[in-house]
Amino acid sequence: MNQVHINLGERSYDIRIGAGLLDHADTWAQLPKAAAALIVTNHTVAPLYLARLQASLQAHYAKVHVCSLPDGEAYKTWESLQLIFDELLGQACDRKTVLFALGGGVVGDITGFAAACYMRGVPFVQVPTTLLAQVDSSVGGKTAINHPMGKNMVGAFYQPERVVCDLATLNTLPQRELSAGLAEVIKYGPIADMAFLDWIEQHLGDLLARDPQALAHAVQRSCEIKAHVVGLDERESGLRAILNFGHTFGHAIEAGLGFGVWLHGEAVGCGMVMAAHLSQRLGLVDAAFTERLTDLIHQAGLPIVGPDLGTEAYLHHMRVDKKAEAGDIRFVLIHPPGSAVVRGAPDALVAEVLQACCQA
Amino acid sequence: MNQVHINLGERSYDIRIGAGLLDHADTWAQLPKAAAALIVTNHTVAPLYLARLQASLQAHYAKVHVCSLPDGEAYKTWESLQLIFDELLGQACDRKTVLFALGGGVVGDITGFAAACYMRGVPFVQVPTTLLAQVDSSVGGKTAINHPMGKNMVGAFYQPERVVCDLATLNTLPQRELSAGLAEVIKYGPIADMAFLDWIEQHLGDLLARDPQALAHAVQRSCEIKAHVVGLDERESGLRAILNFGHTFGHAIEAGLGFGVWLHGEAVGCGMVMAAHLSQRLGLVDAAFTERLTDLIHQAGLPIVGPDLGTEAYLHHMRVDKKAEAGDIRFVLIHPPGSAVVRGAPDALVAEVLQACCQA
Repeated sequence: MNQVHINLGERSYDIRIGAGLLDHADTWAQLPKAAAALIVTNHTVAPLYLARLQASLQAHYAKVHVCSLPDGEAYKTWESLQLIFDELLGQACDRKTVLFALGGGVVGDITGFAAACYMRGVPFVQVPTTLLAQVDSSVGGKTAINHPMGKNMVGAFYQPERVVCDLATLNTLPQRELSAGLAEVIKYGPIADMAFLDWIEQHLGDLLARDPQALAHAVQRSCEIKAHVVGLDERESGLRAILNFGHTFGHAIEAGLGFGVWLHGEAVGCGMVMAAHLSQRLGLVDAAFTERLTDLIHQAGLPIVGPDLGTEAYLHHMRVDKKAEAGDIRFVLIHPPGSAVVRGAPDALVAEVLQACCQA
Repeated sequence: MNQVHINLGERSYDIRIGAGLLDHADTWAQLPKAAAALIVTNHTVAPLYLARLQASLQAHYAKVHVCSLPDGEAYKTWESLQLIFDELLGQACDRKTVLFALGGGVVGDITGFAAACYMRGVPFVQVPTTLLAQVDSSVGGKTAINHPMGKNMVGAFYQPERVVCDLATLNTLPQRELSAGLAEVIKYGPIADMAFLDWIEQHLGDLLARDPQALAHAVQRSCEIKAHVVGLDERESGLRAILNFGHTFGHAIEAGLGFGVWLHGEAVGCGMVMAAHLSQRLGLVDAAFTERLTDLIHQAGLPIVGPDLGTEAYLHHMRVDKKAEAGDIRFVLIHPPGSAVVRGAPDALVAEVLQACCQA
């Protein structure tokens, strides 16, 4: 087992990474004591891993309750959150109850937000079962639900007690979701570590074939970079925004098509292509970099051409993005490769990028 | 103008207390800069004070949006919260937008929770217009909405940037609500300061007649005591629970009758009578204390006899109270007068208290 430490003072915690962690009672040792735990999961993950997590948690909690939600981004809503609160209150769960998020990014975000709000805050543990959640969404304490008018608009910064990445759970992940997770892995290269980008290029075949050692390294290095950034800027007042590389364009794609049509990672993959093009047009990177990144994203099985939503729709969705300030869109751009800057760009230039990167 | 400082490190803030503060642009100086503000209020308070607050805020914000909610505890729901998010997103409000809660405890709690969640946190200012909100709910950062299965079950600890208590707004308060506010004023005596209880007894007539000097002192001293307690225990891991004197029984009354039938302060007033009786039966205070407190609560215009919900219903509602642990009810009891303890009590004893204190 490997560990990555997230250093956030009294909110510090560890990410545990390894194959088969789910089944070891040890994995859950030294968490806050409580009479009850609640596992939140979804209908896809439950048949695969729920019974095993329940069995393993029973060594620590007298009662292990379950709340299983429908699968998908479309269910990252208040209604799902309400199902969790109904279960907690229906089982008379007190404010020491520990929540466990067993699933991908949606389950993690919604469970984290439920934990942040239930009785004004109960402890929770992330047990991500998708590559995307293991390398990104389960780490760093961003929790949220979607609002009909925007993604992740209602949420909290709320840190888990622990993140447990059981690499064996990636074996049941559909190939499309593996690729979506690779988008967030690839992201860490351009914004922070070009040597890691080299490594990803060299091992992309192994990663797509789920070679355990390759996956272990990808998860570990991604978490290390995220831990470093989050440790410096927990609440995204500055630096942390670089983790949103590809996400401004990506969110517009998700919002424009309707959440859930493209996977989040697919939208981020295509969004990184757009952000690279914008960086290039602003003179921040050269054409070779854009081409190299685009190739890698394509080879990872991700879309590199955006849907034709129309420039106005893209701009509208990006203006209501959380990162926008007084209607000015804030883009995460690469300058130079291996580091990122956050800045605005003229609408006309963004329109050119969209024209170059979208389906006619 | 008087000020009380809440000392919470980087989350510190001031409570400003005085008559006519609402109309002075100075009152809002040195708040976080933003392009827009949103005033959340209710249909009762809006006709009285909204235009004045809007005018006074326009010196600081280019846009001052408004979201007015129906009045009452019954509307402290997710649906109301959703109206605030709809307005914020509909007006493309970014994450620097400052929220202002203009109204009583319900408006303050819901606005604070909206501020805690919108884009994972925006600044907010409490502008309490009821005595209860000025002396209690607007101070200390507890925010929440109700769940059909329990009061304040979904919320956050989230501190305002400032609390502005305009004493002149108390002139339009219905007498029933003035009395409800006095319940929380009286509370501070038994738990923290018997000299203050003496003062309240001596000035109860002035308070009920809304003598400005008496109200100013009552608000100031209440805020000082609350500030002291909250400064020592922001997240209610221990000491802060003493502020819930009367609230365990009180919440059961509110939940049992349906939220909004009794005012929160009325339930707390009657709850303090019950908690005094329980303290007495446990040998923590003498009969004279119980009698003295009961008299004062009665003279303040508050109920001292509980509704006949049946012992089982009371116990059930108290078991799902947030302060309960693994089904054990935690009572705030007086021992000795001027200080409080938090502990359990045998069901049989609680049943005796309920029988003595409830309508046959």
